[in-house]
Order: sequence, then structure tokens, then C-alpha cells
Amino acid sequence: MSAATANKVDLGAQMLALGEQARAAASALACSSGAARNKALLLAAREIRANSEKLLAANAEDMAAARERQLSAAMLDRLALNPDRVEAMAQGLEAIAELPDPVGSVIARWERPNGLVIERVRVPLGVIGIVYESRPNVTADAGGLCLKSGNAVILRGGSESDHSSRAIHACLVRALDASGLPGHAIQMVPTTDRAAVGILLRDMAQFVDVVVPRGGKGLIERVQADARVPVIGHLEGLCHVYLHAPADLKMATDIVVNAKMRRTGICGAAETLLVDRELVASHLGPVLAALFEAGCEIRGDETVQQLDARVKAAQPEDWDTEYLDAVLAVRVVDDLDSAMAHIRRHGSGHTETIVTDDAEAAERFLQGLDSAILLHNASTQFADGGEFGMGAEIGIATGKVHARGPVGAEQLTSYKYVVRGTGQVRP
Amino acid sequence: MSAATANKVDLGAQMLALGEQARAAASALACSSGAARNKALLLAAREIRANSEKLLAANAEDMAAARERQLSAAMLDRLALNPDRVEAMAQGLEAIAELPDPVGSVIARWERPNGLVIERVRVPLGVIGIVYESRPNVTADAGGLCLKSGNAVILRGGSESDHSSRAIHACLVRALDASGLPGHAIQMVPTTDRAAVGILLRDMAQFVDVVVPRGGKGLIERVQADARVPVIGHLEGLCHVYLHAPADLKMATDIVVNAKMRRTGICGAAETLLVDRELVASHLGPVLAALFEAGCEIRGDETVQQLDARVKAAQPEDWDTEYLDAVLAVRVVDDLDSAMAHIRRHGSGHTETIVTDDAEAAERFLQGLDSAILLHNASTQFADGGEFGMGAEIGIATGKVHARGPVGAEQLTSYKYVVRGTGQVRP
Repeated sequence: MSAATANKVDLGAQMLALGEQARAAASALACSSGAARNKALLLAAREIRANSEKLLAANAEDMAAARERQLSAAMLDRLALNPDRVEAMAQGLEAIAELPDPVGSVIARWERPNGLVIERVRVPLGVIGIVYESRPNVTADAGGLCLKSGNAVILRGGSESDHSSRAIHACLVRALDASGLPGHAIQMVPTTDRAAVGILLRDMAQFVDVVVPRGGKGLIERVQADARVPVIGHLEGLCHVYLHAPADLKMATDIVVNAKMRRTGICGAAETLLVDRELVASHLGPVLAALFEAGCEIRGDETVQQLDARVKAAQPEDWDTEYLDAVLAVRVVDDLDSAMAHIRRHGSGHTETIVTDDAEAAERFLQGLDSAILLHNASTQFADGGEFGMGAEIGIATGKVHARGPVGAEQLTSYKYVVRGTGQVRP
Repeated sequence: MSAATANKVDLGAQMLALGEQARAAASALACSSGAARNKALLLAAREIRANSEKLLAANAEDMAAARERQLSAAMLDRLALNPDRVEAMAQGLEAIAELPDPVGSVIARWERPNGLVIERVRVPLGVIGIVYESRPNVTADAGGLCLKSGNAVILRGGSESDHSSRAIHACLVRALDASGLPGHAIQMVPTTDRAAVGILLRDMAQFVDVVVPRGGKGLIERVQADARVPVIGHLEGLCHVYLHAPADLKMATDIVVNAKMRRTGICGAAETLLVDRELVASHLGPVLAALFEAGCEIRGDETVQQLDARVKAAQPEDWDTEYLDAVLAVRVVDDLDSAMAHIRRHGSGHTETIVTDDAEAAERFLQGLDSAILLHNASTQFADGGEFGMGAEIGIATGKVHARGPVGAEQLTSYKYVVRGTGQVRP
């Protein structure tokens, strides 16, 4: 047997063991109390605070390697930990502990004419695989959310953040041990070998109930192409702001600038602005001026270019680009129908907003489009589990199956039916 | 280009066209009223009644070919139509029309401290692919349920029922046309070539939102292995009845006989009986006698064999076999924990029932197991959308993602968030 083949066998066996351990942990978690899981979350927060220096030292190793590999400034920023970010992770776990326990809640209850009483009861999904990129905090967030919802989780983070993630993971495992929950409730794939992801997605269907990818388009596409297990899909956020006449100028300006510029790197950031032709003379100039003032680059169609010399010419691919940067594509449309047709064609089904004083047009926009989140007179940057009042989330799902929009603890559950009878048989 | 290659290209192009038409129909359906969809369902029922003779003639062709190919009696029975079964299809469509409209209903509504009003609104999934075996009535049932829930559907039935299914499909399309809904809302794959299923599962992710397989284990496994689109999984129903002491003898006997023998070919039929050792002397004899009297074959462990000479010896594979026939595996267990361990190991996560007067043990069984449906003192044959009061269903889902248990019109929907603001931006 060659060394490469031996390694492959080894990795397969290791992953299998991980799966078996996760399944066993999931069985134990399904019978655990919400109080025990919350206790573990609070202990995990304490472990993270107490080990702040160790986490920062591990992160320094990752950062040094990343600088050597000349990663982009944006990637370095996502990778970096500092005392504030460590504290934020601890607070995040405490916030998850405070969320209502989704497990065991009775979603619906009804009685049949034959006397059978049927309950639909929330249960954990079982074992969740999370595949993410080099953001160390996801280790704590995702581990915490899965634990809250009674699921065992297999984490597979980006290789650049490996030291940081393992140090964080060690804190979580100590907290599990100290609270009497199975240490295998939160496991990490033991290697940064990419083959492990393939095994997780393709060969572990009997151990993994669902995979949640969290990261950029390339990662998501790979997961969706390879997976033989169900995936809760998160595509990119190609979010639109549409200004429809009549619209309040200040509200329109505030929402456009906030939707684009508050944070440009999140999936709820706007990438395209559509403006009614009727509003070009009155609204577009001031809106563009405010965007330029905020440091935004504009790529516009011909009408937009004529309005301001700083506007660059939009190319066809601009309507399909998630910039995640201070760049906005701007297009003038004839009316509501044209705007909706543009969004149907170019959107990713994430989040869109209409700014207008016309309530009827707003309703047509809200009902007629089929994105996960549709807003009227509010910024697309509200596309966030916390802003929805759902607490922490693992991402915004753009698929239609299982969960859509923010994926929090509740969305990481399934349900079962509990039926109580008195001897009923079916005629 | 060889003829085979040309056919492949043709089939690919045909399937692509089907997908584009389905997507366009789904957009139109999403904006259609529940009244229009109900009208089409009632017209479809009328078309089926009016064309009963044509349907029976088409079915006669299928039956003749099936007899020539010497299909089993069970398969011939599933394939056969007669006037009563045609009438049942029509009534099934009328019953679907009477169900509440799931589309557009507001599932939840809350207001945030910043004044944003968030609604979670039920929407169709979009385009559903249904892959089923040679049961002509599924064409009407599945087409009707998808239409009710505002989805476009691509149907792919078994080749043995092709003439029957096409005749039924023609009725549905005439009803769509007559009610002003897109005729492409219910499409059938134009060929019985199995390659079409592969294309549907692997190459049409942009057109198909979810695939629902309906049929035996082989079909489901193929769909789950090949699919690059989400699947609402239906595995087999390896359902258990567990008799736990103390238990009423008459109730136990009635439930066991009903769970096994009322209909042996449905997924909610019991396949394994587990009996507490404590109940062997008092209960097992009479229960076995009633089963034998009903014409059931028993395969038991040693204790069961000693009780009655007619009991055959159970082999290890019997605990993992879905007979779908008048055969029951019977095993004696030490206690509740042994019974639950057996079900966890051998069950398919479909439906299990406990018969006992011990309320505490029943609760442990209902909470501790993780099948889609868990019953206390009732027959497993209640595992059915109609019996749950949910109306028609497309099957009993055993997966944990999206839907679990009976999959009716409501389970064929997703949701979106509609958020109404007054100019809110995110701080």
C-alpha cells in the first residue's frame, strides 16, 4: 500500500469514527435538558474568556502564516482575533444561552374525531456538518447554535484559521465535559486535508443529517455539487434597492447609503440600485452625491452616467456581481414591472427592498417577488437573525427547502409527531 | 452524430424545455388565486369522470403489456384502473380543492423595537419533480397536490403505467387550460427512457426546487444517490409495535392485528412486533392466535417459536425487512430500554407504537425515540395524511429536513419574510 493510499484509508477511518461519535452524541443530546445545554454554553463563554491569551497566541500563528502567504487585507481582517473579538465570542455564547429552547416545544396540537390527540413536537435535526472558511469566530457561533438546538456538530473550518479554531474548539469541549454533556457533541475534522470535506459530503450520509455551508460562492457551489446529504443552501446576497415614485427623498437617500455602505462585506449589503425613470431628475442626483460622499464607486447605465461624470459605465456582468465592496451598480427602469423583472433575472433570492410612498406598489413588490426577505421602506442590511429578533444565526438561507432567511437555533430543528390514543385501530 | 447521441441531445433539450416551461408556469402560479387553482382542481375531477372510458381503455393497454411481461399480481393490482378507482381519483381531486389554501397565509407576525413589522408568509416551493412507480392514480394525486400548493410539477411515472398516466395527465391539462392557468403547471416527462430521470435529478437544478420520490426502496435510493437537487426523502416503513407490561390484552391484540393486517402493502403497516418478556405467558399466545387466524405468517425468536409450532424461525435479516406482506417478525425483549434499542437499530424512522397501561413508560417511548410518528395505544396504520386530518398526501417523509411525516399541500410550501418599515436604517 502506498503512503498516499494509506493516508486515504486513515482519513476515511478517522472520518467514520467522527461520524459514529457524532451520532452517539446526538442521541445523548436529544435526551439532554435545555438547562444542561445552557450551562455548557455559559461555561464555554467562561473558558473562552479565561483562555483569551492562548486564543490570541494561536491566532498569531495563523496570522503569521497568512501574512507569509500574502492573503488579502480583507481575508486577514476576517482571520484576526483581538481581545475585543474574543470577548464578543464569549458574549455571543452567552446570548445563545439566553435564547428560548427550541427543543421539545409543541408546535401544534389537535384532536381527531376518533379521539387521537396529535402533537407536532420540535426535535433536533441530529448531526449537522458545518463547512466554513477562515473566520475563527464561526467555530464558537456554529458550535454554540448547534449545541443550543440539541444537535451534534462536525465543524470543518478553513485551513488558514486552523490554530485559532482548534484553540476555540478546545474551550468548547472543556465546557461540554464540565457540564456532563458528551464531548463529541462538538467535533472538528482532525485535518485540513481538503479530501476530508469530500468524505463528509459524499460518504457520511448515514451519520450526517444536514450540511450547512457558510462562506463565499465557491465554497457553497462546491458543497452543493458534491453533497449526497441534504444542504441548507446559502447563496450569495445580490440584494437590490428599488426607488419607486413617489418616494421621500431623504428616506430614499438614507436607505440607499445604509444598504450599501453601513458594512459592504455582509451578504445583506445592496449591490444594485434600481431607480424609476420618473425619479431621475428629482432623486438620483442627491442619492449619487451622498454615495460618492460616503466613498462609493458607481457603475451606471447611460442615463446614470449622464448625471455625474464620476459614474463609470456598467458592463453587463455588473448586474450579476456581488461586489461585497464599496461599489454599486445603478440602473434606471421604466416602472415597477421592469424593476421586478430585473430582480427576478439577476437577483440571488436573498433580500430586496422597495422605497416608495405608494402602498399599492409596495404590496405588489412584496407579494410578487420571491426572495427570502422582501422589505418596504427599510434597509437591506436588516437581513440578519439578530435584527429579526431570532438571536444568533449561522447565515441567511436562500434555498427554499427546510429553512429560508436567517438560520438560527429554531431553524436547526426538525419535528416529529407524537400521537396519544386509547386503543384506536384504523377501520 | 450517431443516432444514440442525437437522441441524447434531443432528450437533454426536451428536458431543458420542460424545465423552462415549468419555471415560467411556477411564476404565474405564484400570483394565481387559490380560487382559480381550486376551480382547476374541480374541472380536473369533472374531466376525469367524463373521460372514464378513455382512461380505462388506456389502462387496458398498460395491463395487457404488463400481463405479457408477467408482472407480479401485486404490481398488476397497483396498475389496474376500474370505474371505482377512476371515481376515487375524481373525488380525490375534489377533496384537495376543499383543503384550506396554504399559499399566502401568514405563519407568524411580530414587531421589532425599531418599528419594523416582520411577517413570515407561506409561498410555493416553485417547481417540484415527482418520480413515482406504476400507480396511475399518483398522476392525479401528485398533480392535484402540487397545483393546490401553487407549485408547477414535472411528473415522471413508471413506464408500465405510461398510457394510463398520459390519459390522466391530458385531463389535468384540459382543466388548467379551461381555468386560465398555465398548461405547463402540470407536465409529464415526454419519454419512458430512464435517462430522463437522470437528467431531471442531476442537470436541472436551476429549474427544479425539490424532488419527491414516491415508491419502493430501490427508487428512493436511486433518487437520493443521483440527486443534485434537494430531495424530500421517503424511506421504507419498517414500523414496530411494542407491547409493554401492563397492557390490556384485547387492546394489544386489536392493535397488533390492525397494524399488521388491515392493509399489508402500505408503508404504515407494522413489520416487527416486540413483546415484553413479562407478557409472554399472558399475552403472546392470544396475539399469535389472532394473527394466525387473520392469515399472517410469523417469524419469531426462540421464545416465540416455543409458544406455537406454526411460528417459523426468524433470521437476522428479518429484523431489517419491510415485508409489505402478511408476514410479521416477533421478538421478546427484556424491557422498555431493550425495545427502544432494537427500534433505534433496526427501524427506518417512520412509525412506531407502544401499547401499555404504563403512562410513564409510554412517555419515555414517545420522547426517547426519534421516528417521524410515535404513537401510544393506537395502530401504526394511522400514519396517513388523511388520518392526521391533513387531507391528501404524497407520502410519509422519513428524512429530517423540510418535512417529516405526512407530506400534504402545506408541506409542499416554503416561506418568505415580508418586512414593512417607515424608513428604518440599521445603526
